[in-house]
Amino acid sequence: MTAFAIGVDLGGTNLRIAAVDEAGRLMEKMTLGAEVGRGRERVIEDMTAAIREVVQRFNSDRLLGIGIGVPGIIDIETGTVHQSPNLPDWRDYPVRDEIEKRLNTRVILENDANAAALGEQWLGAARDHDDMCMLTLGTGVGGGIVLGGRVWHGFKGMAGELGHITVEPEGPPCGCGSRGCVEQLASATAVVRMAKEAIAAGQAPGLARAHGENPEFDSKIVYQMAVQGERAAQEIYRKVGWALGIVVADLVNIFNLPMYVIGGGMASAWEAFAPTLLQEARARSYIYAETAAGDDAEPGRKKTIITRALLSGDAGLFGAARLPMLPDEVQGHAKARLRTA
Amino acid sequence: MTAFAIGVDLGGTNLRIAAVDEAGRLMEKMTLGAEVGRGRERVIEDMTAAIREVVQRFNSDRLLGIGIGVPGIIDIETGTVHQSPNLPDWRDYPVRDEIEKRLNTRVILENDANAAALGEQWLGAARDHDDMCMLTLGTGVGGGIVLGGRVWHGFKGMAGELGHITVEPEGPPCGCGSRGCVEQLASATAVVRMAKEAIAAGQAPGLARAHGENPEFDSKIVYQMAVQGERAAQEIYRKVGWALGIVVADLVNIFNLPMYVIGGGMASAWEAFAPTLLQEARARSYIYAETAAGDDAEPGRKKTIITRALLSGDAGLFGAARLPMLPDEVQGHAKARLRTA
Repeated sequence: MTAFAIGVDLGGTNLRIAAVDEAGRLMEKMTLGAEVGRGRERVIEDMTAAIREVVQRFNSDRLLGIGIGVPGIIDIETGTVHQSPNLPDWRDYPVRDEIEKRLNTRVILENDANAAALGEQWLGAARDHDDMCMLTLGTGVGGGIVLGGRVWHGFKGMAGELGHITVEPEGPPCGCGSRGCVEQLASATAVVRMAKEAIAAGQAPGLARAHGENPEFDSKIVYQMAVQGERAAQEIYRKVGWALGIVVADLVNIFNLPMYVIGGGMASAWEAFAPTLLQEARARSYIYAETAAGDDAEPGRKKTIITRALLSGDAGLFGAARLPMLPDEVQGHAKARLRTA
Repeated sequence: MTAFAIGVDLGGTNLRIAAVDEAGRLMEKMTLGAEVGRGRERVIEDMTAAIREVVQRFNSDRLLGIGIGVPGIIDIETGTVHQSPNLPDWRDYPVRDEIEKRLNTRVILENDANAAALGEQWLGAARDHDDMCMLTLGTGVGGGIVLGGRVWHGFKGMAGELGHITVEPEGPPCGCGSRGCVEQLASATAVVRMAKEAIAAGQAPGLARAHGENPEFDSKIVYQMAVQGERAAQEIYRKVGWALGIVVADLVNIFNLPMYVIGGGMASAWEAFAPTLLQEARARSYIYAETAAGDDAEPGRKKTIITRALLSGDAGLFGAARLPMLPDEVQGHAKARLRTA
């Protein structure tokens, strides 16, 4: 039996656990309610019980460790969740050590968007590239940078906060304290806000109707309206593409990577925002304009690719499972011999 | 005798050559007129003759190679200058191979701002850090990213074009084809443009007087006026600090590096723009706000430092000389090793 690892994706509503082997094959997947409202002890109890259950179905001697993707900023030195809107009582709590202690196995904590980037790099859209970065468009906008097949962490594990790159210096206020972050222009939340603004301004009769008819009015409905030809909805997704184009152009100018991936739930609206994104990236980065992969791609010449994610909701789960497979993955302490209780 | 390398800094008006030993000691320095107008053959002839002259004063057996900092975008695969406003006839000319052939020594081509960043990392403001990035404020705004003691090149050697990060999406047009690049708001050229705009608007009597009295009205004069209390001049440098603060905040959010260095001729106006820069960075990056080095710096806890360069005009020269000292320096041969943990 080949070696395997456990990946955990701790979302706001779901806790998902997967056993994945070294070749990237999914061996087992499990979904639990996260019930974060009931407190960290309960979440960690549920998580460790489920992990034990999954591991004991396989040969635990071949377990490489556990990777956990958490929404929020990770402090890599201390193995704590430094800041997480979804997990307020996790702040400065030694999650990594607590879980390691209970499972007697190496545990690696990672920001969920970093884990998603690693998943796409390992098995998804960027599987042929060691260097890539990814924007995850969901409730917010997350980011992850993979260089040489590893997540770039920075000196405290806080790198890759791409959702807080400034696009409009005097734009909408952001929860981070700044204004005009790309998160305020290209997240699902931003799409709904812009739709409501357009409705309030009386500029979007179709959106107003859809809003009245759907108590759960969301970015997917705005996307459907755009597909059906509603101008205001199309305009909103052009704004999304414009903001993403500026950020991707910045990233091309900074990194000159071969691959930029757009993922997360909002990536399903790719058709509505991608044309503006690509046009804006071309206008704002001469490096992209000169190296963009297009129909004229000459074989053998390296090109810059901007594309959508392939693994959709599973990128973070696979990426989390990847973490214990990378030799010497640093989490502030030395490697431990891997066993499960 | 210790091993040494030759660094070359090819500016618009000067060609500077230095012999530097492995410990970073300057052994010899020479300045020539670059005379780029007389064509690439002439520049390369002058350069190679001067390099021969310098090398023969020392033990040429201990020569590690030659690093050349060139203004413009380098194509690292082919060893060509891909785009350089100052060296129009160098495009797609195999500079590296031509110079290697003439000198029969390893030659490493590098963008001048990348070389400056490497110089500051090796011997300057960031000498205690393996990971840093630097903005060079001159006629334009250059950038360099050093990760693990190596310049981050990207897949074609075009990385680090930090001067073309967008600050104001609808701001002043930039030579790169975009608008509102930080280069258009924080270079010496931008300061002069903003000063002339203020004069034309009748808002800057002091600047208007200085402009009338000085045929060579430049950013230094605007800085002097700011120091002397001229409001319009102070406002211009606040705008510079604002733009730089946005870009540095972006870089902190992206990289989470311990050290960001501001260099180039304009860095001498540090006092006039730094307060706004630091304030803006704090407002736009909660990572910076949480980790900024200040008076409360606890020993042993890593902090984020934003500071001015130390080597002033010599950073690029030292950085160029550093290149041949780095084992396996990539020039289309292999891949840079990276510390990503």
